[in-house]
Amino acid sequence: MPGTVAPSTPAASNGSSKMANPSSSSSWKDIAAAKVQSRLASIPSDWHLPASTLSAISSTSGTDVRTIPITCDILTDLELEITTTPVSTILANLQSRTWTSEAVTTAFCKRAAIAHQLTNCLTEIFFTEAIARARELDAHFATTGKPLGPLAGLPISLKDNFNLDGVDSNLGFVAWINDPSNHDSTLVTLLREQGAVLYCKTATPTAMMIAETVSNANGRTLHPANTRLTPGGSSGGESALLAMRGSPLGVGTDIGGSIRIPCSFAGLWGLKPSFGRFPTAKCKSGLAGQEAVLSINGPMCNDFEGLEMYAKAVVDTEPWHADAKCLPIPWTPVSTVQLPTSLTLLMLTNNGIVSPTPPVQRAMQHAIAKLRAAGHNVIEWDASANSTDAELFLRGQGHIESFFRAEGGATVHSIMESSGEHADWVPGLAPTDAGWNCTVKDLWTLQAKRTGWQAELLLRIQQLAGGREFDGIVTPVAAEVSTTHDAYHHIFYTGAWNLMDMPAVVVPLEGVTVDKELDAVKGDFKAKSENEGKVWSQYKVDEVHGLPVCLQVVGQRLREERTLAVAKKVHDDCA
Amino acid sequence: MPGTVAPSTPAASNGSSKMANPSSSSSWKDIAAAKVQSRLASIPSDWHLPASTLSAISSTSGTDVRTIPITCDILTDLELEITTTPVSTILANLQSRTWTSEAVTTAFCKRAAIAHQLTNCLTEIFFTEAIARARELDAHFATTGKPLGPLAGLPISLKDNFNLDGVDSNLGFVAWINDPSNHDSTLVTLLREQGAVLYCKTATPTAMMIAETVSNANGRTLHPANTRLTPGGSSGGESALLAMRGSPLGVGTDIGGSIRIPCSFAGLWGLKPSFGRFPTAKCKSGLAGQEAVLSINGPMCNDFEGLEMYAKAVVDTEPWHADAKCLPIPWTPVSTVQLPTSLTLLMLTNNGIVSPTPPVQRAMQHAIAKLRAAGHNVIEWDASANSTDAELFLRGQGHIESFFRAEGGATVHSIMESSGEHADWVPGLAPTDAGWNCTVKDLWTLQAKRTGWQAELLLRIQQLAGGREFDGIVTPVAAEVSTTHDAYHHIFYTGAWNLMDMPAVVVPLEGVTVDKELDAVKGDFKAKSENEGKVWSQYKVDEVHGLPVCLQVVGQRLREERTLAVAKKVHDDCA
Repeated sequence: MPGTVAPSTPAASNGSSKMANPSSSSSWKDIAAAKVQSRLASIPSDWHLPASTLSAISSTSGTDVRTIPITCDILTDLELEITTTPVSTILANLQSRTWTSEAVTTAFCKRAAIAHQLTNCLTEIFFTEAIARARELDAHFATTGKPLGPLAGLPISLKDNFNLDGVDSNLGFVAWINDPSNHDSTLVTLLREQGAVLYCKTATPTAMMIAETVSNANGRTLHPANTRLTPGGSSGGESALLAMRGSPLGVGTDIGGSIRIPCSFAGLWGLKPSFGRFPTAKCKSGLAGQEAVLSINGPMCNDFEGLEMYAKAVVDTEPWHADAKCLPIPWTPVSTVQLPTSLTLLMLTNNGIVSPTPPVQRAMQHAIAKLRAAGHNVIEWDASANSTDAELFLRGQGHIESFFRAEGGATVHSIMESSGEHADWVPGLAPTDAGWNCTVKDLWTLQAKRTGWQAELLLRIQQLAGGREFDGIVTPVAAEVSTTHDAYHHIFYTGAWNLMDMPAVVVPLEGVTVDKELDAVKGDFKAKSENEGKVWSQYKVDEVHGLPVCLQVVGQRLREERTLAVAKKVHDDCA
Repeated sequence: MPGTVAPSTPAASNGSSKMANPSSSSSWKDIAAAKVQSRLASIPSDWHLPASTLSAISSTSGTDVRTIPITCDILTDLELEITTTPVSTILANLQSRTWTSEAVTTAFCKRAAIAHQLTNCLTEIFFTEAIARARELDAHFATTGKPLGPLAGLPISLKDNFNLDGVDSNLGFVAWINDPSNHDSTLVTLLREQGAVLYCKTATPTAMMIAETVSNANGRTLHPANTRLTPGGSSGGESALLAMRGSPLGVGTDIGGSIRIPCSFAGLWGLKPSFGRFPTAKCKSGLAGQEAVLSINGPMCNDFEGLEMYAKAVVDTEPWHADAKCLPIPWTPVSTVQLPTSLTLLMLTNNGIVSPTPPVQRAMQHAIAKLRAAGHNVIEWDASANSTDAELFLRGQGHIESFFRAEGGATVHSIMESSGEHADWVPGLAPTDAGWNCTVKDLWTLQAKRTGWQAELLLRIQQLAGGREFDGIVTPVAAEVSTTHDAYHHIFYTGAWNLMDMPAVVVPLEGVTVDKELDAVKGDFKAKSENEGKVWSQYKVDEVHGLPVCLQVVGQRLREERTLAVAKKVHDDCA
């Protein structure tokens, strides 16, 4: 995607020959460039990395930047300790007043500042307000002897689409730069009430509708382990920040894989809930009013425990009183979920559309062997071996793509047009990719078909699992473990569960990393479709060598607690 | 609506000069006429009313036909007793084997047959299969000593849109006559599993999108208390049948008031649940795939107890395993719901769009006085007295109407066109009533506005109720208690709660009936809109004298059990 990389700094912007000189008139390029500068300017000068460090890093340099926060001498030893501590321990240390919120917040602000300079992961920075808020929370604790709420003092990073009063949510659109919100999203209100410290927002691709993280407004976000790779998208600012340990916990959104793909690419835990568990009200959207597939939000974290800690804190606020679309289902502690000793697990090794690349195939086989050895009822499901199953997944993929493109990109186009950036289009949402004249009747017809598709897939899962009480479906998150920039092509390992509105947990596999020997392509791979051909032709094992590998555990709809419990068991038994 | 009354018999069809001679070619009129005849032919000849009785009854005769089942000598004394017994007692008598299912089913088949001849309320009749099924259930009970399920042996009537394998669901479309389904709706499967005996389906208006019950396919359904009036719609076949005591319990559907308006007009209890409590999968729809406002189904009954009996039996099947859209929320027995002694009740006396007609106004004042006297926290809410509130309701009404017409009637038109009946159109769905070229982007924009509207109304309710834990909103079901045919005009007393997806219970007020003295229009009524003018100009107190009056109790979303408990308390305290 040429032309979508932002100006001169940070590192991510290098290598773009198409960018205009920021000084030439007030074009959209000037606006984007000015935003980049003001963002950097909001980072204290003490926290700026030296030019010599930054100049070596670009989207083509293939640098592993993960150790720079440790070696750059900006963080103290305590700050390095804080930022690499599991989030549950951080919270415990806040609650025991071992650490102040000011100390914890400052540590994460510093590390986020560094992460941003290296990977271009942030859109909005409000460190000063965050540290002031942290001091207030510390004072409240000191005065009352009690923390303000279950998340008191904990910094939480948010994807750019959550509104904060007075802060931009540009979602990759130049038109939405310098257009601050006049209200908080409902989730933001509730997180503040629970004591969270909000300190930054993270980058998305244009309209949040790309599985990488690149836009005209914000440039490109880089993978911390290898800057030639993408950290995924659309919550790729979050995944890069978390992988850099610049946040203890982040909140992403997911309509087709936007929490899970970035979590998987960066080796993180992530929860994509069913719609209605967490509030979505008053957020900004690139496709406002599109409801045929519902966007949700959920936590992303380096630790499993963070997912429930967050989920419980949010659901305990009874968000259904604050968001008319939330469901009045209280949170059941995961520790109280009763699981059978032997779980019934469907192992979807292949969705019949795109075969996973070698490291993902190997991860699935690893999981099958480990889970079987642990005594679970493991049922292998290779949809590529059954034309009915393959057709079912292919049909679902057609549905989700048709929903996203139902108005032919008109919404995205009109927003881009208002800044002049529409000359540089978003692939997949371009008017040439779909019918501008798709009618409402066509949409209704498609929605009725999708409802039928949901019933078919649910029945098929129940058949394969031998009953309706299956425990989980273990599947790839993506065919890839990451890709080079602009090379991500297949979202239906994740998208299927958006269409089903079933919860899914991204599980990093302990001790499984990509290996250039084990995961080289053996023999000739013959792609069965153009889509699969693209996925496999971009696969270069040398680029992804050493990356973590994640899988996804999908559960029954609205059983987030049970799905988390199953995911943890799968994780532990695969170790 | 001329031209939508079906041929010669039953009574309802009289007075139509536009109907074709059934013998002239195979036009849509012939098909509809043949269906009327075959329907009548499926009623045993012993259960046919004499021509002398029928000839006195028409949609213009203004007859009260409610006593004819008692006087016509077709039912035995026991059958008359059975059909006027509260449904909970019927079920208890089945479970104690005081009554056999065969006896109960036969009694209701007979009375339904009579009801149909008098009000034209049925579309599909399968009495023979039902009685055979009843005998099987009796045999099962005799053999095993246990009933098959919680509804074992109980006849239940269903609105026409529920699919039964081998049976038509014409939904008022001639094109769908003689086009039997090849499957059961999910609800039908579950009701059968719970032991219900299905014996007939009931009439709907065209596409189920009119608040009366009239179509080219099935003719017009008449109000049992006065055949010049409508029993409401779209579940008006059910309300007429239940008011005739031709069913112990019926299932209707509601997308804008289609359970509640007929219940109210006929003096019945009814439950419109939130979406997701009861399965909707594999039903037939007139606007398939329309999801901006969700259609739900629920029970209609002469007795309060029937509503919960039904709801518990359905939800106890865990329908979320059978219908991907059902929510995994178990049923909490209403008897265990803890209510405060003093309920917080918002009394919406006027929605600011259309003022209720005199008997409904009087019913609201009656309820306010009684509930206040009973010690409840009664908060009056007259939206006509506050321009912001009135605008909010008016805007919501615009949203729901726009959603229904979003494809300009294209779906309905194409179905009607296929039989040739499109010359006689459905008001409100006609292509001239809306833009055929409404785009998907327009729809998305409208959906985003509706989400904002939901948040606004929820907040307003919470403000008025002094907090988020309000117990109920007591409102008219409609501005009218019934109307003469083709005179119903305003659905937003009900539609508001569809847009909000909040549960609502229709409550018949004990001892409150329309009174031609008390409810005469006093002085000059000056309508503030064309809509209100239509509602008030059709109001003729002499036509509705003696009719029952119902109100509606709306509860928090997905709190069906609590809403039922509040509704019962409101009913009892208003008596």
